Amino acid sequence: MEWIEELKSFIPEEQIKTTLADRHSYSYDGSFGEYLPDAVVQVKQKEEVAAVLKLANMYHIPVNPRGQATCLSGGPLPVHGGISLDLSQWPQHVEVFPDDLIAVTSPSTRTGKINEAAEAYGLMYPPDPSSAHVATIGGNLAENSGGPRGLKYGVTKDFVIGLELVTPEGEIIRTGGRTIKNVTGFDLTKLVVGSEGTLGVITEATLKLLPKPPAVQTLMVVFDDVRTAGAAISKTLTSGILPSKMEFMDQACIQAVENFQPAGLPVDADAIVIIELDGHPETIAIETERVQDIMENIGAVKSTIPETEAEAAKIWHARKQVSPAIAKIKPTKVSEDATVPRSKIPDLMDRLDVIKEKHNVEIVVFGHAGDGNLHPNVLCDKRDQEEMRRVELAVEDMFEAAIELGGTLSGEHGIGTMKAPFMEMELGEVGLDLMKRIKDSWDPNGIMNPGKVFPEKGQKLVLRNE
Amino acid sequence: MEWIEELKSFIPEEQIKTTLADRHSYSYDGSFGEYLPDAVVQVKQKEEVAAVLKLANMYHIPVNPRGQATCLSGGPLPVHGGISLDLSQWPQHVEVFPDDLIAVTSPSTRTGKINEAAEAYGLMYPPDPSSAHVATIGGNLAENSGGPRGLKYGVTKDFVIGLELVTPEGEIIRTGGRTIKNVTGFDLTKLVVGSEGTLGVITEATLKLLPKPPAVQTLMVVFDDVRTAGAAISKTLTSGILPSKMEFMDQACIQAVENFQPAGLPVDADAIVIIELDGHPETIAIETERVQDIMENIGAVKSTIPETEAEAAKIWHARKQVSPAIAKIKPTKVSEDATVPRSKIPDLMDRLDVIKEKHNVEIVVFGHAGDGNLHPNVLCDKRDQEEMRRVELAVEDMFEAAIELGGTLSGEHGIGTMKAPFMEMELGEVGLDLMKRIKDSWDPNGIMNPGKVFPEKGQKLVLRNE
Repeated sequence: MEWIEELKSFIPEEQIKTTLADRHSYSYDGSFGEYLPDAVVQVKQKEEVAAVLKLANMYHIPVNPRGQATCLSGGPLPVHGGISLDLSQWPQHVEVFPDDLIAVTSPSTRTGKINEAAEAYGLMYPPDPSSAHVATIGGNLAENSGGPRGLKYGVTKDFVIGLELVTPEGEIIRTGGRTIKNVTGFDLTKLVVGSEGTLGVITEATLKLLPKPPAVQTLMVVFDDVRTAGAAISKTLTSGILPSKMEFMDQACIQAVENFQPAGLPVDADAIVIIELDGHPETIAIETERVQDIMENIGAVKSTIPETEAEAAKIWHARKQVSPAIAKIKPTKVSEDATVPRSKIPDLMDRLDVIKEKHNVEIVVFGHAGDGNLHPNVLCDKRDQEEMRRVELAVEDMFEAAIELGGTLSGEHGIGTMKAPFMEMELGEVGLDLMKRIKDSWDPNGIMNPGKVFPEKGQKLVLRNE
Repeated sequence: MEWIEELKSFIPEEQIKTTLADRHSYSYDGSFGEYLPDAVVQVKQKEEVAAVLKLANMYHIPVNPRGQATCLSGGPLPVHGGISLDLSQWPQHVEVFPDDLIAVTSPSTRTGKINEAAEAYGLMYPPDPSSAHVATIGGNLAENSGGPRGLKYGVTKDFVIGLELVTPEGEIIRTGGRTIKNVTGFDLTKLVVGSEGTLGVITEATLKLLPKPPAVQTLMVVFDDVRTAGAAISKTLTSGILPSKMEFMDQACIQAVENFQPAGLPVDADAIVIIELDGHPETIAIETERVQDIMENIGAVKSTIPETEAEAAKIWHARKQVSPAIAKIKPTKVSEDATVPRSKIPDLMDRLDVIKEKHNVEIVVFGHAGDGNLHPNVLCDKRDQEEMRRVELAVEDMFEAAIELGGTLSGEHGIGTMKAPFMEMELGEVGLDLMKRIKDSWDPNGIMNPGKVFPEKGQKLVLRNE
């Protein structure tokens, strides 16, 4: 292909991969589907990104940016071929400016490293997706990733105050800046964060940091009934206490983790809620007691406080192991993140029970219960076409349930390829059209990450192999 | 005019005002300039807004939405005539959903009422612009208003999770929803908030609430030197403590308030910093002591703690009186809100001193020092053309200084008419063009609030009468 030859005139040859083996290793992410790119281009500086985008824009070649490809919604998949733009090889770099309470980072920096760098100054970068040790901040920015601490602190978007962005036409711009307050024109920063790589390529981000709370306290609360757990979560959140984390695991998740990497979780419990409170030691001592009272009054079986930091860390590690652990149960897992208003969590749990029965599928549930963001995972086998048809129907019912309960298709994983067919159900025709107008005005040739977010004509959810 | 007659076919006649006296009362806001609308239309429901916008879009009539017109940047001014769309007569309505930690409000509701409604459930709506008792939430949403509590809690945008919007073409859409987490497509909510009425008319908002902290503590710290005050603010903020408010007043502001409504402020102080800490009583007792230590170590003359709640309220009332008080000193005040990274506050103060000398203008300074958002106010007399020319040059220098220090033209007042000429200086040609593309794609006939945000060809800052 002519354009691949042209690429070589400005990108070092070792950063361009075109063998079938290389293209195969860039054909998938943490979600569904496999699509071969025509070429992989590893970029390491903004000028390279700008040059690639200018060329792609001229030849109308799709550009599919990716970091570590842990994405659960298909964001990096080259569904229309073209270029896999790999930013994971960019040098990791994060600089903390403690007096301004900000950090400036390269797109490839692993999210966990940013928090580590902040902690060296007694600060913190709150967003903590479970993949923080491996995923890049660039991917987090594209997908607006969440995580357990989202409950108290908010998601990625809430901590981004400035970006350097290469536009679909290959121009380098800056949005926002280094100030906490900024109302100079439209908020392009928050428009680009979460736009799933459809509006350009982020090459640098300025992130807001917070003082790190002096202490944290973990609690594990055991329930013999899922609905009671939901009610206890609601009750706690309306008591005036805002925990930093409030995570839910059902019995299947608990057992999966114990089979995978035993952590001493109560395998006979119907559900557990793991809570973290942060703040001053005096305050969290009082709050811990109040949370225990609330939970027990509403019917918790028991609540336990880990005696050492190591024990607490073990519980949180177990929570992070849920995803890999349940992946061992059946060959395929379809991970959802339909989200409802906090008070509707017990209702969502009831709806999930009905869906499970109706379509005869295996669903396990865990997630960020405190902010209404559960992760129902359907465990299945993608080689079984008949089962996958039932899974498709179950997933459709989940989306419908979430929207009927006043919620949304996606709380933190993004729309990507899988949920695009359901966008109009949530946004309406006009709302979706207004998003499309923005996209078209920035990317007239449609080169940036095509096939994501916006449904293609007649597109349906397909989890079966074609 | 034909279109005014047509308006009467679907808007009750008493809601349409066309007398010269009526048009005059809608010709100004809290900023500069007077422009007559052709007609005033008071709307009270979304269907009326949709019908007005459909008509205006057909006839290409400018539509200038306004709430209580307390705007400090010219947002509501009908600079190209057309319709003043008055939303202040819409019924005030706010409903709190305590289990979901949200409130749903009509656009006309006074911002202070929303916080009152939240407090009835032990919750709070943090944004607290000084005009909260009179300004509408609709205006706050259009301008993305801040306020003292922005330091800890963020600005209006950080608390909006859903909108009902009438588009420039008269369609009614919903953005976002009732969930805290939502990554379904582009974030139209955060795009519209702060877009100064250029992308449509907001007819309802869903706002996030927080548990109200059980206690607050006010401190007043006195300095005999402005730069030391700046350094003390920086030092406190990097100590791990995040006060809910941290406000600065220079000597001229202190004296103005004492002349206007005596509050017992120290009139001989060079500057004062007023701080509020919130949280659990045990925690704020410890934090109060630490803040006092930090401030005194760095050179504060003294710090005082009000003995009663009434005394604390008096101090905060005095802070709110700064704006009206300084307006008594000279006939005209030009209120700026150039914002810099927190650490650059002492530098900004130095630059303001230089600008004051250079252009021989009177500048007083107060504002939200904790987040780098100062309000330098130039006191002048708009009838004095020669003085106003100097004021224009001083304001230009302020913008330049803010941007050179890594800051922004506007932290919370918005761009409106006055700052539009400086947009390209901050955003660059491409950045500004990308904003304009969004605007044009949503509002192809350019009817929504024209003359705001985007500079017109050759537009310059003009504070003199034409």
